[in-house]
Amino acid sequence: MLYFTNHFDTALIDPLLLEKGFEALRYEANSNQVGYYNLPVVSQAFVAEASLLRSEIDKEINTIAIIGIGGSSLGIKAIERLLRPSTPNTKKIIYLENSDPVSIQHEISEIDPKRTLFIIVSKSGATIETLSIFKYLIVIFTLIVKDSEQILVISDEDSILSRFADENHLRRFVIPHNVGGRFSVLSAVGIVPLTIAGFDTQKLLLGAQSFLESFWSRKEDHLLQKSAYYVSNSERFPINVLFAYSDMFEEFGKWMVQLWGESLGKRNRNGERVGLTPIALIGSVDQHSFLQLIIDGPLNKTVTFMHIAHSMEELMIPKLSLKYLEKSDFLNDHSFNELINAQCMATMQSVIEDGVSVDEILWSQINEQTVGKMVIYYELLTSASGALFEVNTYDQPGVELGKQILANHFKN
Amino acid sequence: MLYFTNHFDTALIDPLLLEKGFEALRYEANSNQVGYYNLPVVSQAFVAEASLLRSEIDKEINTIAIIGIGGSSLGIKAIERLLRPSTPNTKKIIYLENSDPVSIQHEISEIDPKRTLFIIVSKSGATIETLSIFKYLIVIFTLIVKDSEQILVISDEDSILSRFADENHLRRFVIPHNVGGRFSVLSAVGIVPLTIAGFDTQKLLLGAQSFLESFWSRKEDHLLQKSAYYVSNSERFPINVLFAYSDMFEEFGKWMVQLWGESLGKRNRNGERVGLTPIALIGSVDQHSFLQLIIDGPLNKTVTFMHIAHSMEELMIPKLSLKYLEKSDFLNDHSFNELINAQCMATMQSVIEDGVSVDEILWSQINEQTVGKMVIYYELLTSASGALFEVNTYDQPGVELGKQILANHFKN
Repeated sequence: MLYFTNHFDTALIDPLLLEKGFEALRYEANSNQVGYYNLPVVSQAFVAEASLLRSEIDKEINTIAIIGIGGSSLGIKAIERLLRPSTPNTKKIIYLENSDPVSIQHEISEIDPKRTLFIIVSKSGATIETLSIFKYLIVIFTLIVKDSEQILVISDEDSILSRFADENHLRRFVIPHNVGGRFSVLSAVGIVPLTIAGFDTQKLLLGAQSFLESFWSRKEDHLLQKSAYYVSNSERFPINVLFAYSDMFEEFGKWMVQLWGESLGKRNRNGERVGLTPIALIGSVDQHSFLQLIIDGPLNKTVTFMHIAHSMEELMIPKLSLKYLEKSDFLNDHSFNELINAQCMATMQSVIEDGVSVDEILWSQINEQTVGKMVIYYELLTSASGALFEVNTYDQPGVELGKQILANHFKN
Repeated sequence: MLYFTNHFDTALIDPLLLEKGFEALRYEANSNQVGYYNLPVVSQAFVAEASLLRSEIDKEINTIAIIGIGGSSLGIKAIERLLRPSTPNTKKIIYLENSDPVSIQHEISEIDPKRTLFIIVSKSGATIETLSIFKYLIVIFTLIVKDSEQILVISDEDSILSRFADENHLRRFVIPHNVGGRFSVLSAVGIVPLTIAGFDTQKLLLGAQSFLESFWSRKEDHLLQKSAYYVSNSERFPINVLFAYSDMFEEFGKWMVQLWGESLGKRNRNGERVGLTPIALIGSVDQHSFLQLIIDGPLNKTVTFMHIAHSMEELMIPKLSLKYLEKSDFLNDHSFNELINAQCMATMQSVIEDGVSVDEILWSQINEQTVGKMVIYYELLTSASGALFEVNTYDQPGVELGKQILANHFKN
């Protein structure tokens, strides 16, 4: 279960904004303009297909190498990191993302090409980092591409990468045309690699679907409230912080940053620059870093506190009193999980008292269902906020100029 | 070498602010109120002492476990990550930071207690995560603390942790009273563990010292310009982005975020909330994430582009043309290092054209000297900005309330 509490002043929100947000999302879903709403149902076919593939290759393949960047890796990493501790017998996943030569060299040193399935993920099919790394892998590992069982492609139906896959008779999975990269984690992009690795993606999709149904039946209006509050106060609070209490949220935070930043940072229909700046923090670590700025710095941030009620690790702080260190004994015989939850609650209380707009998301525990729900929660929150900003939530026009400059640099 | 270029409009800066910043720093250093300015010289004694220790334990110990959080781990991690690829024969370093039970369990599974040196780092000596984890390690590994050669303490001279160390005859290193946690990486905090691990900390300190001397002789006024520009435009540009093009900057970015956020996010002498919000991004990865928001979102950010001219890995994109993927062939026979540098320059140009305030930091290469220089650069930039904001750059009063609430929670 997930428990959502908005501690900010909901009385200040225009109730019409909730309706505007809800209607916009219903329209996007019903008109089929935006495809991610259907993924929890549609992607179930991939679970079956990828499970079959998993059983075929299970003996030879122990590693999956994802060659992809941005929306083609962040969501997979986020889910893997959250579910890995409770799913020990899964295949290793290696990510080749950045054009950084030091990283590429390091990741490659971890790959045994005979026992690795290479999954090339690119929605457009033309991502320059992904294609360059793929070419490098072909040469360095002397991969024979034609008819290879070890290379799998996930891309748009008619992309150049898909044509390349067909030309070489590679296994290929399709990202629906109406699903953008940063909304694609529950499409083949996430479901195929995670299923092959051994994660229970069926439950992930069921969790996502159940949250969606709950949202459509107006049982999750806290989400519409939050998006209305964020957008109507975007000039006062241009920064939205996610303060998540577990290292397992590190990649989830990066996924959220892409989703939020790239979807909302746009020109609106009047050509005005709008958007909200996402920041992902980890508790309790960032209590020793960023927290001071939240508490005493400018009141230009909202903060979402996220924590986990039941941890899979029940580590106890021992009943041990050390001379001169007795000051720490008040925690003796309590668990680290109690400590981190208490740190979250104490910090939240202190931040609220300082006048900051706060909301809280409590996970009963981390499992496939709750992770699926949380993915859909953030996607819906983003879509609702985009609708209220009156931007195109699903494109990314700003990053094209840099690509042109890059290509010109090498062509001249 | 490091090359600094301010692309923002320096003509708009009041030249008196440069003098105000410089004089404030000179006063802090000369009056000995702030101690980090002396560390490049003072800490050379630790290099000698820790080198000797290293040679004594070299055969038995292959792992260093740092038990510390915030200023007691971020700087060590930042330097380790940057220098690790070019310093292969160093001891493994494991960090026990967060009160997250899943992380603690995972890190502990990597430790062979017989071959590990445990270094407990806490300036105040009373950090609750650090003491709780230390107690857990004592029990789980049945460590005998008294007279242990395997436990080393780094703390303030008269902290409770230092008294505990003396009581048990443990090796102990002192953090000077006038050096704050987030400014302490060049004190024993960073120098002792990194020297024992096998890094050339002598060169690190020499690099830092040479930058300091250059700054004091007014050859680095670009730094004072930048701090004057940031502080005088803090309402227009409340967010400062560091866009660093290599995965090796991941931990450096977190170190910078603590330094900048916790030092400047304060009440000023009039009780007003001031501060600047730091964000650390990695290129090219975050070109596929946060960049859209910089380009089309609100113009409320400055951006520092950081990149490395010469990489230690000379990986070439092969001369390989694949049918349907010819679009990527313009990079054939170029190196990944050329690609990532060109991506940085192209993005920077595009961001400048969009009216964003930009500066550029180019590393000739990553080595001990340049890392030492960069550490001091960011510390000086922070101190100068704190002086112009008229805040106490070196305290963190805001985080105390949460600690009290936490203690009360368990005591009641």
